[in-house]
Amino acid sequence: MSIPILSFDQVIDYLLASRQPYYEKYLAMYSSWYGGIVTDPALMMVPVDDHMVHRGDGVFEAFKCTRWNIYSLDRHLDRMQASLDGSQLSLPVSREGLIDIIRRTIRAGNCGDCLVRLLISRGPGSFSANPYDSIASQIYVVAFAYNGPPPSRYEKGVKLVTSRVPLKSEFFATVKNCNYLPNVLMVKEALDSGADFSVSIDERGFLAETATENVGIVTKNGEFLVPRFLRTLRGITVSRALQFAEQMEGSDLKSVVQADITREQALDATEVFVFGTSFDIFPVVEYDGRKIGDGAPGPIFKKLLQRFREDESSNTALLTPVN
Amino acid sequence: MSIPILSFDQVIDYLLASRQPYYEKYLAMYSSWYGGIVTDPALMMVPVDDHMVHRGDGVFEAFKCTRWNIYSLDRHLDRMQASLDGSQLSLPVSREGLIDIIRRTIRAGNCGDCLVRLLISRGPGSFSANPYDSIASQIYVVAFAYNGPPPSRYEKGVKLVTSRVPLKSEFFATVKNCNYLPNVLMVKEALDSGADFSVSIDERGFLAETATENVGIVTKNGEFLVPRFLRTLRGITVSRALQFAEQMEGSDLKSVVQADITREQALDATEVFVFGTSFDIFPVVEYDGRKIGDGAPGPIFKKLLQRFREDESSNTALLTPVN
Repeated sequence: MSIPILSFDQVIDYLLASRQPYYEKYLAMYSSWYGGIVTDPALMMVPVDDHMVHRGDGVFEAFKCTRWNIYSLDRHLDRMQASLDGSQLSLPVSREGLIDIIRRTIRAGNCGDCLVRLLISRGPGSFSANPYDSIASQIYVVAFAYNGPPPSRYEKGVKLVTSRVPLKSEFFATVKNCNYLPNVLMVKEALDSGADFSVSIDERGFLAETATENVGIVTKNGEFLVPRFLRTLRGITVSRALQFAEQMEGSDLKSVVQADITREQALDATEVFVFGTSFDIFPVVEYDGRKIGDGAPGPIFKKLLQRFREDESSNTALLTPVN
Repeated sequence: MSIPILSFDQVIDYLLASRQPYYEKYLAMYSSWYGGIVTDPALMMVPVDDHMVHRGDGVFEAFKCTRWNIYSLDRHLDRMQASLDGSQLSLPVSREGLIDIIRRTIRAGNCGDCLVRLLISRGPGSFSANPYDSIASQIYVVAFAYNGPPPSRYEKGVKLVTSRVPLKSEFFATVKNCNYLPNVLMVKEALDSGADFSVSIDERGFLAETATENVGIVTKNGEFLVPRFLRTLRGITVSRALQFAEQMEGSDLKSVVQADITREQALDATEVFVFGTSFDIFPVVEYDGRKIGDGAPGPIFKKLLQRFREDESSNTALLTPVN
């Protein structure tokens, strides 16, 4: 195997020539390490000694920008602050400064429909686990093009299976940090079994969450149930869905509660949902190989999706304009 | 705040000018992404979309090179393979190829006394948790100068406290992956309380491990006890210490066993140890503010340290020559 020692110029030449197919989606990255925004994906790099890289010592958020409006940014930044507190990390700029960075990154990417990934890291300075070795926390913000999931997922629904990946401990399940290997393995197990999502069961025997999403069900009695946020992350999207559902109480839904939900209740539900930032809500039409309801997206799903679409296009209280 | 959009050349100029004080220790980095070895610390970077960065989706090992000999490399690579298996990751080169990379990286760093950090990542390709989005696993090997810990730590000993950080779940505690936030918080809590290490107690009430090290004790009856590897990583150094201790059975030690150890047993011990790759063994002279033994490094510590030093200088069975 040839293992050359590369000169500075050779690395630069490599970066200049580096063009991956997926780079076309990568619009812009702000890096506090560089002190600015880059638009060349080959430069979207972080120091290997940033403790986020070698220890997972960082927190993150992801949010959606649609037609130049960021959805639920304040809620994501509130949760990010909670994650920072839980990780004993500090935001190295003011919240207003961070919002400015996010807006400028999206503008530099020149695309109003994108997902934004925000990473706050312990920063570089050593390869140890000692957080005091870091010289300063860093901020990385990446905007990449996104036009929503394939429409077939809304039209045909998704398949869910029960996960066998061990649960995270409670504390770390409720702080959104970069320790996501269990979640990675849940995505893999879902896809390997021919499903789209896998849902974990907590040690008490109740539904917890999918790899990076929340779940919910509608029972035959018209109850809208979502797992309590004990062993699961308090999702921004599912929280909004709960608000929508509450407005449907008394008409489409009998009640809306956070509850302990068994696998059997989910199998017996008329509708099952997955909630996530990038797609809002998917209808689950099959769980562990068994048909949910009549095996097609149900009426509550359709109403909730409609509410999300209205919210994202016109609820100015939750929209942060980029420009 | 000024947030410039940086041209390619501006980033290169920034990297050329970037000189951090700690860079003098960073000797060389192999990056499969670059396809070679770099010696300029400013270029020691990884793609931000490598899933190791944003998801902690990678495994690592660290090992020591002393006078151009790597200590216990095979044992570290065996454990790395177990971590890869647990993380459902594959090594993208042969084991021989990896050893060649490690040797060449140390040679490029031109320093025979160093620590080597080996990272195997899921690789870049998206910002999702989906491992199938990655185009290929990557290898990063960093060598940085290291001449051992401050001698005072061997001469005066170290202070230990009991941790209050929640334990990792069993599975993730026994796979050496980049999900180390709990460990980071344990380092921080130790230092914040004026100690050097903090040791976790498992849910059964028994000593587990410190942030990135193992522990052991000698009881008043001359028993050498090390926690069972149930909720703790099987440390390479403590495993070697167990072999040394077994050779002292019948003379200096009455017995050598892996056992359930309570905090009270540790407080009552004649000696307490911390074991780690970068320093081999430290004597604990204080635990939760109480003196251990007579408050000075004990005889078993001294013999074990001596055995490690002999091992690292002359046990050719465990030494891998760099050249």
